[in-house]
Amino acid sequence: VTGEFSAIADLRRLLAGPCAEGEIWIGDDAAVLQPYPGAWTLLAADTLVAGVHADLALTGLDDMGWKAMVASLSDIAAMGGHAGHALVTVATPPGTDLEMLYSGLAEASREYRCPIVGGDLTSSTELVVTVAVTGWCSGRPVLRNGASPGDSIWMAGRLGASAAGLRLLRGGGGTESDLARAHARPRPLLDAGRAARSAGASAMIDVSDGLLADLSHICEESAVGFRLTQVPAAEGATSQEALRGGEDFALVFCVADRAALADAFDGLPPPVELGECSSDPSERLVDGVTVDTAGWEHHW
Amino acid sequence: VTGEFSAIADLRRLLAGPCAEGEIWIGDDAAVLQPYPGAWTLLAADTLVAGVHADLALTGLDDMGWKAMVASLSDIAAMGGHAGHALVTVATPPGTDLEMLYSGLAEASREYRCPIVGGDLTSSTELVVTVAVTGWCSGRPVLRNGASPGDSIWMAGRLGASAAGLRLLRGGGGTESDLARAHARPRPLLDAGRAARSAGASAMIDVSDGLLADLSHICEESAVGFRLTQVPAAEGATSQEALRGGEDFALVFCVADRAALADAFDGLPPPVELGECSSDPSERLVDGVTVDTAGWEHHW
Repeated sequence: VTGEFSAIADLRRLLAGPCAEGEIWIGDDAAVLQPYPGAWTLLAADTLVAGVHADLALTGLDDMGWKAMVASLSDIAAMGGHAGHALVTVATPPGTDLEMLYSGLAEASREYRCPIVGGDLTSSTELVVTVAVTGWCSGRPVLRNGASPGDSIWMAGRLGASAAGLRLLRGGGGTESDLARAHARPRPLLDAGRAARSAGASAMIDVSDGLLADLSHICEESAVGFRLTQVPAAEGATSQEALRGGEDFALVFCVADRAALADAFDGLPPPVELGECSSDPSERLVDGVTVDTAGWEHHW
Repeated sequence: VTGEFSAIADLRRLLAGPCAEGEIWIGDDAAVLQPYPGAWTLLAADTLVAGVHADLALTGLDDMGWKAMVASLSDIAAMGGHAGHALVTVATPPGTDLEMLYSGLAEASREYRCPIVGGDLTSSTELVVTVAVTGWCSGRPVLRNGASPGDSIWMAGRLGASAAGLRLLRGGGGTESDLARAHARPRPLLDAGRAARSAGASAMIDVSDGLLADLSHICEESAVGFRLTQVPAAEGATSQEALRGGEDFALVFCVADRAALADAFDGLPPPVELGECSSDPSERLVDGVTVDTAGWEHHW
């Protein structure tokens, strides 16, 4: 039997890192942090439920921890922001290997320089992991509602890799393939998000529910339609996986003027042009054909 | 059947409030907020699980929402801080009355001026509600580790009221009594926390797991013992409920010099002196008798 306080003491050792002068991370009622340097503070949170967002027969608890952190960081990336700090809350049944779960959280935390500074640990009958993150932005963050007709639509990252990796894992494929790894260990594109912002992106979203579904959110908020002319699938992924697969955490963004893109993405994989925004807010065209844009959605 | 996006649209209407210029609350990838005025940013999160932290046969879903918000705000109170903004994530089985749950969250959010600016909503087999809150502090926040031998120990709020209320509810008592209400609708003592900080409190914690258990956290972090000479129970609560009952969200704090207390608590219920800190870090005395300090703790 493990008690809450000894588990927290273990985690405190696992997660403790260097603080700035005067900061307090895990161990008090609240974390104490220096103010962020930017003009805007960002806040986002995502919840992963074992069996819903992560099939623990196919991927590890460490992968679930990693993905929980990445899902929230990807929201910061989609604003063009910098990662700040994370709070991790875990509701867990008996017997869960918490050290394995937290090792994945800690790995992503280190990789993306977003220290875990607090949270909560409680008992439950199913495993639920919530990561809340802060972030900051010195300039104006990129919202979903700024796209205009005629803006070109771009994508940074890969499409369909996570869905293809899940398909391979379900078919008994190994965990070591590039696609399986894309499913187990997706990456938040913080650098690309900031590049898109500095290039003047008018709207941006991350692909968590599927390209068509998430691009439709931009269209709804911006009152534009879309006409896509190419949707490149990750190598080994099908075109349907590229159009509808979730959890790639690619970024989709719009720009009125492409002139600044090359400079902004210097040193990063270049973004790919997918098409353009149209003036009819109901238009949803891929290669001239109207598409159904429903993506992943929870139902009750 | 309710879909995630229509549920989020409903919640957005329920929760939308006035934003400061340029701020974005619910509806984008992350909330966009102006920087906090204080010198220090605070972050805390708490998770409530239906059946573990809230017996929905005795109290309502709105009460669970209220308590989830209050548990996190109380962590800000225990630092002597001001409430900032909240992120609410809900993992929920089919059939949960989300409007009822969110009405309690929204009520506490309005009461304590801590707007809900984002979060997540997902499906699960049991109801898990996480509230992450930000806060801020213009001066130095009050930590757990600053108490010294000889400091007097004080309490703001009431002790045992929540535990007594739960006992009455379990015995079939009505929900309208003062104690039942203290259980269903506890209050975070943000004003008292700031008063204690301005009076020079050396250490502070909120009583979520029980007075003895939480005061012991101060002792462990500060390397002091305690000698309590009086522990007043809320009217109708037993002395054991006052010593060990959780979720009162009273504040316990230490001061080296009591001179500033009266002015700092002007207009607020005066804090009650419970005893003093001693130099033996292992001492745990109530009326001269050594006590077991174990409080509520999750075990796996």
